[in-house]
Parts: sequence; structure tokens; C-alpha cells
Amino acid sequence: MVERILEEVKKRLSTQGAAEVQPPLKKEEVKKEAVVMSVSGLTEFVGTAIGDTVGLVIANVDRGLHEKMGLDKKYRSIGIIGARTGAGPQLMAVDEAVKATNSEVVTVELPRDTKGGAGHGSLIIVAAEDVSDARRAVEVALKELDRTFGDVYGCDAGHLEFQYTARASYCLNKAFGAPLGKAFGIIVGAPAAIGVLMADTALKTASVDVVTYGSPTHGNSYTNEVVLTITGDSGAVRQAIISAREVGLKVMRAMGQNPVSSTKPYI
Amino acid sequence: MVERILEEVKKRLSTQGAAEVQPPLKKEEVKKEAVVMSVSGLTEFVGTAIGDTVGLVIANVDRGLHEKMGLDKKYRSIGIIGARTGAGPQLMAVDEAVKATNSEVVTVELPRDTKGGAGHGSLIIVAAEDVSDARRAVEVALKELDRTFGDVYGCDAGHLEFQYTARASYCLNKAFGAPLGKAFGIIVGAPAAIGVLMADTALKTASVDVVTYGSPTHGNSYTNEVVLTITGDSGAVRQAIISAREVGLKVMRAMGQNPVSSTKPYI
Amino acid sequence: MVERILEEVKKRLSTQGAAEVQPPLKKEEVKKEAVVMSVSGLTEFVGTAIGDTVGLVIANVDRGLHEKMGLDKKYRSIGIIGARTGAGPQLMAVDEAVKATNSEVVTVELPRDTKGGAGHGSLIIVAAEDVSDARRAVEVALKELDRTFGDVYGCDAGHLEFQYTARASYCLNKAFGAPLGKAFGIIVGAPAAIGVLMADTALKTASVDVVTYGSPTHGNSYTNEVVLTITGDSGAVRQAIISAREVGLKVMRAMGQNPVSSTKPYI
Repeated sequence: MVERILEEVKKRLSTQGAAEVQPPLKKEEVKKEAVVMSVSGLTEFVGTAIGDTVGLVIANVDRGLHEKMGLDKKYRSIGIIGARTGAGPQLMAVDEAVKATNSEVVTVELPRDTKGGAGHGSLIIVAAEDVSDARRAVEVALKELDRTFGDVYGCDAGHLEFQYTARASYCLNKAFGAPLGKAFGIIVGAPAAIGVLMADTALKTASVDVVTYGSPTHGNSYTNEVVLTITGDSGAVRQAIISAREVGLKVMRAMGQNPVSSTKPYI
Repeated sequence: MVERILEEVKKRLSTQGAAEVQPPLKKEEVKKEAVVMSVSGLTEFVGTAIGDTVGLVIANVDRGLHEKMGLDKKYRSIGIIGARTGAGPQLMAVDEAVKATNSEVVTVELPRDTKGGAGHGSLIIVAAEDVSDARRAVEVALKELDRTFGDVYGCDAGHLEFQYTARASYCLNKAFGAPLGKAFGIIVGAPAAIGVLMADTALKTASVDVVTYGSPTHGNSYTNEVVLTITGDSGAVRQAIISAREVGLKVMRAMGQNPVSSTKPYI
Repeated sequence: MVERILEEVKKRLSTQGAAEVQPPLKKEEVKKEAVVMSVSGLTEFVGTAIGDTVGLVIANVDRGLHEKMGLDKKYRSIGIIGARTGAGPQLMAVDEAVKATNSEVVTVELPRDTKGGAGHGSLIIVAAEDVSDARRAVEVALKELDRTFGDVYGCDAGHLEFQYTARASYCLNKAFGAPLGKAFGIIVGAPAAIGVLMADTALKTASVDVVTYGSPTHGNSYTNEVVLTITGDSGAVRQAIISAREVGLKVMRAMGQNPVSSTKPYI
């Protein structure tokens, strides 16, 4: 009994990375999905990714819908990235996608979701003049998600999330007003109380500028999160995030929780 | 005692509107519930139905509450239909109820709910001059729910929902501004990305008019849904819905999901 | 090592404010947590309590964050009470805390949460000139939660909640506009339909004044609740609550549910 406790404690204290947490897909499931895809022959479907993320394209958006969605007339094609779980990971992923492709972020909407969790889901629409550009943007975004979920730490009581980029682009600018081309970071704590403490820690650690401070009823979609976004010197932004992460994980553990990375930490 | 229980059960099954549409209860549960009912003697309770829907009536609304709820003075009695899961099914059901009874829809409120799912719950209040009319409206609505849940397709990643009526009435008019007496359809996809694609498909399929286009932060209660409502020629509305359903189910399956009807498809 | 673990556990149980109000942990969990705590040495962590409530303090809020949070300059220290589940219990608990300590409620935010349930979570911030006052306020609040969760009745279909105080203070005043020093009660029903009926019952039972009437899209954070708050003569407020509770429990049982107290009823 005592042995088991000590083992658990040791294991817990030594390994925090936790790559094993990746929602394991059985090989069979992957195959099944592939088969279904070939059967469906649905040209609009691009793929899926972690967080119940789905990527879709529409080559020629219906004129009536085009108007309802408030799209610019020059764009015929759109790419759609939507997820039940996660806003930050998808926003970072699409930010990379618009850097890498000839596309533009047109709308960002963040529902209250995470399937009973404390946070957001996401609906991000990118537009392009050509469908192949829209599709490429969605592909790049879906590929990035494995990485951008790396510093999302979930547990029963809530979650912590950290995102970092050395150079913010148009998606982060659209969503948060991030200065283009500058280092940018996102710090999320849920329940929101933890986010307040992490925000304080981040701002005390390094000289960074606050871009946004979101709380449940101010800037969030009634999520139980505090979301701090910061910009500044890249080293300072990273350091602020790392300190916030350290304190956030400590609080979670003090609550008796075991927060683990959704994939593999990248910051 | 056993006799009384069985009698109560029989009575309840034969006379109460909602009995057929209740989620299957074990016999033991039915007995227990029936006993409680006879003990409670709660005249306000009308019944329950799928989606944790509950139907209630108040014969004489308290004057202070009457004012807080913004009810018209001519109505003393109200019927209340509330649910954890579902907005469309309840709205369609109440639409039939107000067609069939001497009652009026006074408020429609759609919380963010579905018990950890991606969508809405509902709170719909109908008013009548006489309590028997209010009760009858609630009974009709509860009875309709088994049908109107028929094209609600749930799975782990989200849900799809389709509703159709050949003749929209006052509830759909109140909730969406549906033209009275015209064919009307609702198309819902969650996560919202799927709803965008279904909306595009619907509008390309048939010549219909968009009544509303709701997305997570525009017109929805921060649900992870896109909700398209359409009107027009009844054949066109049906065809648009059927095409959207086909593409929605394909995307869900391509995601590795197995969406299934909550009861039995009706469109 | 084992000795040290046990010592830590003992120390924690005797010195930490919130220890008594924590949901029962298995012995193994207590040991594990205690070890982690001694490793963390986090001065900001005060404790946890039922509802995934966490209590934190910040001795010297960062100047930039101070401004973003809109805090009065005279307050250097804040106490933070946040929870995934519950708004009423935490508001009542903090109300007692500010009565008992030299602190002030500065913000109340109620996310849409309860982990897939129908209601709110909470983020309440108290401020004090001295960190020991902020910490004391958080400690008192955490201790109160076991009591204030007493009339929270949960079940699969929803929940009922009742709160009563003979003398409302600054937290209830901030959150609802409760008259200071007067008896005050909160009545919550979810799904919201039940809340309508309970509100009607409460107001018919006793001569009380309505302070607020909240519904999913009016005054709530899109929760599936109706929330009635009342004031008046202390006997009348209590009687109104007790009648509402009776009818609420009856409806839940008629729905085939078995609502049970989260801890132990106190009203």
C-alpha cells in the first residue's frame, strides 16, 4: 500500500511531459475513418484532428449564404475549421496556416463548449480566391493542431493552456488584436480563479504588454476562464508564459488534480 | 397498495399526453414515479418527455411574478415547456400546440445547455385565459416531441437537427420570424463548421429564402451550432433539408462518428 | 519518507482553513496531495472546497493587472474564490466572509458552467489593504461552503438550490442588489421551467418582495435556470423558500428523478 503511494508520487513528480496522454486512437478506428472517407467521396471534407476539430472547404459559396456571412465579394472559396474543444490551439494553428498560404481569416467565433469542460470551442473561417488555397490552409491548420495542443493541460477540475509564437499573424490579430509580426502569448486558466493568479505571475515575471485580459463575462463566451494575451520581446513573452505555467500547474496539483498535456509540450 | 400502484400506472399511461414519448423507463421506475405522483397530487405537473422536457401549468400566476415576466394582463394561466436538451424539437412541438389550442406563445428563451452537448435547451411559455387551455397546449406539445426529435441525430462529436413544417404558426414566428402559414425548415449542425456546409448545401439545392442564419456568437446562446432557417415552397424547403441532412451525415461519418436518430426520422 | 508524508498530512489537516470542508478524499489521495503541497510551497494557495472551488490570494497585485481588473488603488491584496460548480453557495459564503473580515467584494462574475450541468460557476474577488485580511476572507468563505451547499439538490435532469440569510451583506448586495442587513433568499430551479413554478409558489406563500427574477437570457449567463431572489420579513422569506423547495422537489420526483442534498440541508 505504502509502496504504491510512493510509486505514484515518484512517477508523478518525475514525469510531467506526459506524451502518453494523447487520446489514443486504435489503428482500426483510423482505418475505418479512411474507408468511410473514400466511400463518402465528399469533396468538401478535408480532415479531422484532436479536439473534435473538423476541416471543410466550400469551393463556391452560395450567393445568399455569402451575404449572410458577410464575406468579401472577391472570395468565392472558404475553408472552415471548427472544433468542440479548444480556441487557442485552433487560432494558433490557423495563424500558421495563413502565413503559409494565400488565404485570409474572415471570421472567428468562439462558442461556449469543450463538451462539459470549462472553455471554448471554435469556428474559424478563412477565405481564398481559389479553392486549392482554402483547402491548403485547412490542411496546414489541421496539421498544426497536434503541436498547439501541447501546452493544453486538462484535468477533472479544469484546464490550463499556453500558446506562444515568435511572430503573430493575421488570425491572432483578428481574434485578439495581436500586433503583426511580434511575439505573442496566450495564458488560460480554468476555473477562472487560477487564470487570475497566472496572469499576475506572468506580468510580474517579465516586462511584457497586455493585449487582452478576458474573464467569464468580459471578452469570453461565459467560459469559466481568465485569458491573458501578451506581446513584447520574444524572450520576455516566453519567460512570462513559463512562469505562469509553473504556478498554474502547482495550483492544480494543490487542488489534488493531475493536469497532463494533451499531446506534448512545445513551449 | 400494489393494486393502487398498478391502477395509477394504468391511469397515467392511458390519460397522460406525454406517456408515450417518455424515454423508456424500467418498470420499477414507472411504478415508483406513479406512486410519487399520486402522493404529490401536484396539479401543476403535466408530464415529461424526451430531452428532460418537463411540462407544467400555473392556473393563476402570482401578480408580482406576472409583472416580472412581462405577461399580458388578460392571461391568468400559463403553460411552461422546459428542457435540458433541445430547442428546435420543442419549438416545433409548441407550434403544433398553439395551432390546436386556444393559447398564445408569450416567451421563448434558449439557454446554452444539452447537458455537456453542443446546443440549446429551452424555456417556452404559453398563456391562455383558462387553465384547461394552457394544460391542453402543454399536453399537445409533449405528445409531439417524440416526432420532432426524429431528425435529431446525436453522436459523440456533436449533433445534426432538421425540422420541417408545411405551415408555420405563432411559435416559429415568435422564435425566428417565420412567415405564418408558409412552409418552414430548420437545419442545425454542431460543431458549427458542419452547419456552415449544410447551410451552403441547402441553399444550393433548392430555391428557398433564408429566414435566419445563426452562428455561435450571432443569434445563438454561444452554442457550437450554425442554425439556418428557411421558408418557401413546401417541396423546395423539404428538398433543401434532405440534401443538407445527407451532407451532414456524411461529414459526421467521415469524422468517424455514427450519428443516429433520437427517435425515428420524419422528414 | 512515509513518516514525512504522514507528518505533512497531519500538519495540513490541522493548519489549513479549508481542510474540513473538502469533499471527502480517500486516504491515499490526501497523502498524495499533501506531498505535492509541501513540494510546491505556494503561498498564494489557500485551499479547496466542494464544487471544485479554489481559494487563492495575491499579496501585491501587479500594477498592470490591477488596472485591467479595475481595482481601487487603495487595495494591494486580493482574495480569489473560483468554482466550476455553484454561484449561490459561493456568494453566500463570501457574504459571511466579508461580514467577518476587513475586506470588500470587488467583482462577481458568473460563468456558464457546472461541468455539463444546467447552472453557473463563479469567480468572486475580494480586496483588502492587507494580505492577511484577504487570506482570512478566503478561509472563511471556503469553510462556509459545506453549509451553503446544503440546500443544493442535484439529479440527472437538473438541480434545485435554496439559500437563506437573516442579514444580507455586501456580497449579496453586489451580486443582486440585496438590501443590506435584511433577510434575503435565493430560489433556483433547473431546468428553468421548474424555477418558474417555484417562483410562483414562493410569491404566493408569503408576503415578500422580489429583488431579481433571472431567466436563461435575462440576467443569467445562458444557464438553464430561473433564479428568484427575495427579501422581506425573515419569517416570510424562510417560509417562501420552504414552500418553493417543497414544490420543486415534488416536480423533480414526478419527473422520475431523485434530487439529493449536496451536503446537509440548513434551511
